[in-house]
Amino acid sequence: MRQNIYDNKEFYQEYDKMRKEKKGNNANDLIEIPNFRHLVPNVENKKILDLGCGYGENCKYYKELGASKVLGIDLSTHMIAEANKSNKLENIEYKVMPMEEIDKIEEKFDIVLSSLAFHYIKDFKKLIKDIYNLLNKDGYLIFSQEHPLVTSTILSENIKSNHQIIDNKWYLLLADYNRIGLRKKEWNDQIVEKYHRNFSEIINTLIEVGFKIDNILEPTPSEDAIKKVPKYIYQYDRPYFLFVKVHK
Amino acid sequence: MRQNIYDNKEFYQEYDKMRKEKKGNNANDLIEIPNFRHLVPNVENKKILDLGCGYGENCKYYKELGASKVLGIDLSTHMIAEANKSNKLENIEYKVMPMEEIDKIEEKFDIVLSSLAFHYIKDFKKLIKDIYNLLNKDGYLIFSQEHPLVTSTILSENIKSNHQIIDNKWYLLLADYNRIGLRKKEWNDQIVEKYHRNFSEIINTLIEVGFKIDNILEPTPSEDAIKKVPKYIYQYDRPYFLFVKVHK
Repeated sequence: MRQNIYDNKEFYQEYDKMRKEKKGNNANDLIEIPNFRHLVPNVENKKILDLGCGYGENCKYYKELGASKVLGIDLSTHMIAEANKSNKLENIEYKVMPMEEIDKIEEKFDIVLSSLAFHYIKDFKKLIKDIYNLLNKDGYLIFSQEHPLVTSTILSENIKSNHQIIDNKWYLLLADYNRIGLRKKEWNDQIVEKYHRNFSEIINTLIEVGFKIDNILEPTPSEDAIKKVPKYIYQYDRPYFLFVKVHK
Repeated sequence: MRQNIYDNKEFYQEYDKMRKEKKGNNANDLIEIPNFRHLVPNVENKKILDLGCGYGENCKYYKELGASKVLGIDLSTHMIAEANKSNKLENIEYKVMPMEEIDKIEEKFDIVLSSLAFHYIKDFKKLIKDIYNLLNKDGYLIFSQEHPLVTSTILSENIKSNHQIIDNKWYLLLADYNRIGLRKKEWNDQIVEKYHRNFSEIINTLIEVGFKIDNILEPTPSEDAIKKVPKYIYQYDRPYFLFVKVHK
C-alpha cells in the first residue's frame, strides 16, 4: 500500500507544529521556497498543476501572480483540508489524489510544479512520463527534492551518526550512492519511506522521456539564512535539496 | 604557471609504471575505457579531437574504427613523445598543446573527446565555449572526469582518513561539495592540483554554452571488474568517475 504519512495524525501534528512554530525560520521558508520560485517562469495566464501541494501555499502564490488556473493535488486528506481552509481562491482547485494516478487527469497544463515530494515516489519514470503527457507544447516542469547526498547513505548498525562536525565543517558519512532504491528514515518519530536516486538516474530519466534540461540548482545558503539559522552554513558541505527545471 | 605534472619525471615514471604493470587491471582499463567507449557514437568518416590524449591509445582506437582524422593534444611533451612512438597511424596527428589554448586551432571537428583531464582545468566555462566553437553542427562532446564526490572533500588536519570501511561498505567522509575550486591532492608522491565542481556547475555550464545533454554515467562495476579487483565493489558506495555526453 502507498505510504501516506501526512494522514498519520501523530506525524502531521508534529509537522504542522514545526511549520507553524518555525514560520520564516525553517528550511522550507529560508531555502526551498526562495530557490524554487527563482526557477519558475512567468505564470501569467498559465495553467498550473502542483503535485504534492501540501497546504496549498504555492498554489495561492502563483494564482495571485496571474496564473489562469491552478490544480493542487495531494495524497493527504489532511493537507487538502488545510489547503481548502487557508489557501483557497477562485480558479484554484484542490484534490485528494496520489501522484501515481495523474494519468487519469484529462486536462493539460503549461507548468507542472512539485515541491519536496518526488523522493516519495517509487516509479520515477512513470511519473515523469505522465507529467510529459500532461504538459502543453513548450511546457515546464520544475521540481525540488531531497538532494541525492541526503537520501544516499544506509547506515550500518555499527555507525552511530551519519556525520561529524570538525573545525566547523559538516563531514557527511556517505555510502550507497550508486544503490538506487528504498530508504527508511526516522522523522517525527515515524519511519518515512523514501527513494534514493543518483544524479544520472534523475537526469537520464528526464532526457529519455523527452525533456530538455534548463537548469539545476544545488543551493548555498544566503547570508540572511545563516544569520537566522547558523547551521545552514553547512550547506557548503552538502546541499539539502536539489532543484531541477526542464521543458518539453 | 600551468601545472604540468605529466612532464615531471618522478611523476611520469611512476605513472608509466602503474599503467604498464597493472595493464588490464587498473581503473582506466576496467572502468574508464569501457564506459567511455560505450558513449561514443559511430566515428566512421568523422573528424575527432582528443583533449589530453596522453599515450594516444584512444586516438589509435578511433582511427582504426574508421575516423577520417584524429588530432590528439596534450600538455605533456613526454606523453606526446610516447604517443608518437606507440600509437601513430596515418591521419593521426599529435601536438603538444595545453587545453587552455584550443581556441587557436583553426579546423573544425565532428566529435571532441576527453578522458580524465577536465578536472585539471581551472576555467571550465572557457574550455566548454572553445569546444563548442570547434564543433561542427550536431557535433558531440564526450568527456570523463573524476567524480565530484571524489574531488569534493578538503580534509581537516584533525581527520586521519577520508573514509572508513564498515561491514564491507566504503563510507566516504564528504564535505565542501558546494565549495567549488582548487583542490591539492597527493598522487605518486607529488601534489597534484585539481578543480572541484559540483553537478550543477558542470551541467549548467554545458547548457549555458548551448549544448544539449544526451547522457550522464556514474558507473557501477562489472562483475568481471570486481573479480579482478575486489575493492571495485565500493563503486556502489561512490563512483570514481563521471561521464557526460552532450551535443551541439
